[in-house]
Amino acid sequence: MAITVVGSVAYDSIETPAGRKDRCLGGAATYFALAASFFTDVRVIAVVGEDFGAEQEAVFHARKIDISGIERAAGKSFFWEGSYLENLNEAKTHNTELNVFAAFNPKIPDAYRDSEFLFLANIDPVLQRRVREQMPDVKLVAGDTMNYWINDHRPALLEVLKGIDILLINDTEARVLAGDKNLVKAARGVMSMGPRMLVVKHGEYGATLFHKAVANSRQSETFRAPALPLEEVVDPTGAGDSFAGGFFGYLASQPALTPGAFRRAMFYGSVMGSYACERFGTERLQQLSRKEIDERFQVFRELTHLD
Amino acid sequence: MAITVVGSVAYDSIETPAGRKDRCLGGAATYFALAASFFTDVRVIAVVGEDFGAEQEAVFHARKIDISGIERAAGKSFFWEGSYLENLNEAKTHNTELNVFAAFNPKIPDAYRDSEFLFLANIDPVLQRRVREQMPDVKLVAGDTMNYWINDHRPALLEVLKGIDILLINDTEARVLAGDKNLVKAARGVMSMGPRMLVVKHGEYGATLFHKAVANSRQSETFRAPALPLEEVVDPTGAGDSFAGGFFGYLASQPALTPGAFRRAMFYGSVMGSYACERFGTERLQQLSRKEIDERFQVFRELTHLD
Repeated sequence: MAITVVGSVAYDSIETPAGRKDRCLGGAATYFALAASFFTDVRVIAVVGEDFGAEQEAVFHARKIDISGIERAAGKSFFWEGSYLENLNEAKTHNTELNVFAAFNPKIPDAYRDSEFLFLANIDPVLQRRVREQMPDVKLVAGDTMNYWINDHRPALLEVLKGIDILLINDTEARVLAGDKNLVKAARGVMSMGPRMLVVKHGEYGATLFHKAVANSRQSETFRAPALPLEEVVDPTGAGDSFAGGFFGYLASQPALTPGAFRRAMFYGSVMGSYACERFGTERLQQLSRKEIDERFQVFRELTHLD
Repeated sequence: MAITVVGSVAYDSIETPAGRKDRCLGGAATYFALAASFFTDVRVIAVVGEDFGAEQEAVFHARKIDISGIERAAGKSFFWEGSYLENLNEAKTHNTELNVFAAFNPKIPDAYRDSEFLFLANIDPVLQRRVREQMPDVKLVAGDTMNYWINDHRPALLEVLKGIDILLINDTEARVLAGDKNLVKAARGVMSMGPRMLVVKHGEYGATLFHKAVANSRQSETFRAPALPLEEVVDPTGAGDSFAGGFFGYLASQPALTPGAFRRAMFYGSVMGSYACERFGTERLQQLSRKEIDERFQVFRELTHLD
């Protein structure tokens, strides 16, 4: 089943202990789409500026991603500059230029309307909601957000959460959103806001999937996927979006959303997140093969399974 | 096979968000011995003061732990006071009184000499080494340490590490000991100091077992066990020692030290660590049953396994 994703398509300038790269193709929707494209059809809604050309389009086309929903506007694309020199788990933002994103009003192409899966990448919750409302009949909606929206745009975010089935955020975001330091209680708090499932990403320690059934203390409804202990993290930018792409892309490829499908989806999310870190920007995702993905899936199984 | 453990038997005054408890029976050797006693025979080497009486002895006797190697000295037992009010993952130490431990010179009772497993709990590496040298024929030696010894007693610690097969420490300790922020590289660095295996404990995120084979990039030699997402952590004191007791106790109970035995040992370690946090001090370990342990082992399997 096809996924429509709305989010940023952007340029990033990134500095990590492994080096520096200026103006790589980036943005949450880009990472998500590339990762998900190994599993299912992906359609992107975004806005870019005049600096987005044939070279960038080719990255999407090579993975057969539909970008007819990427609007071209006068001006420059969204730009982010950040570094991870002291802590690979947390970016330090040096500069954010919204540029064409400032006036973005997402429109859904007719060709996207039969998408059964919708992913609301980390953007202004007002925009997330506008897209959600234009696609009332999707089968499954997942989304991401960040502390900025949680802290400063809470009412708009709470509105969006009512229409999301699965929220994917990190530990800190879950704790801040729910106002509880304990992860299990925070998860329950977040799920009381709308989502019936919550994926909490723990960076290098993996991720945990909570279902609403946790409220009834059914621990077995919780699932924890590991992250691969990586010897060299070249660039963690987009790891979370790539996780989301692997997770949601795999789900969209499945005939039924069984508990087993969700467990495997968590593993595929971790696989895509681990590959994303191996090179700067989206380089590794662009060169990846399904065979490599399935090989690493087996590595994750061996990493965690008793037999 | 029997385990001899050397370490502290102490009193702890602990404050956590769940409350406060004064002078609970504690100490690394106590937690370790209680946890390991569910799997195999355990013998303790330690020193206590005149404040250690029949009530405390009964805790060990109830679990059939041999305490003939606990020396009685004039004065007071080791005492620690700490709190976890802001961060459940890291204790804030308010007071440490070495008391009788200051002049401790460990002696091995003859009845302990046929122990095939030796655990060197977190104490002065000079004492760890003295015990290690008195038991040259043990089959497997594991040990623990902490940042204080890593930073301020490095030469003595490096001597001990040469005689240890498996070191169990936390993330920060591994990174500081090896001088490398990357966990995989830090693990390799620590294993170049002697231990052929390293267990890195990640607190609420579980633990990772590294084998020396990691140096040859055989990722499948790495194993990651989860921690249970706990709704209420009453008191994390001793969780790491309880992990070590479950891990090493289970290994000592096995007919052969196969890769599968090590994987299951990691799970049993996580199980014992999770139970230890449920009540203050050693309360939960004192009341635990093997049936509960195996039930939680299954919960951990469900938490992590694809099918």
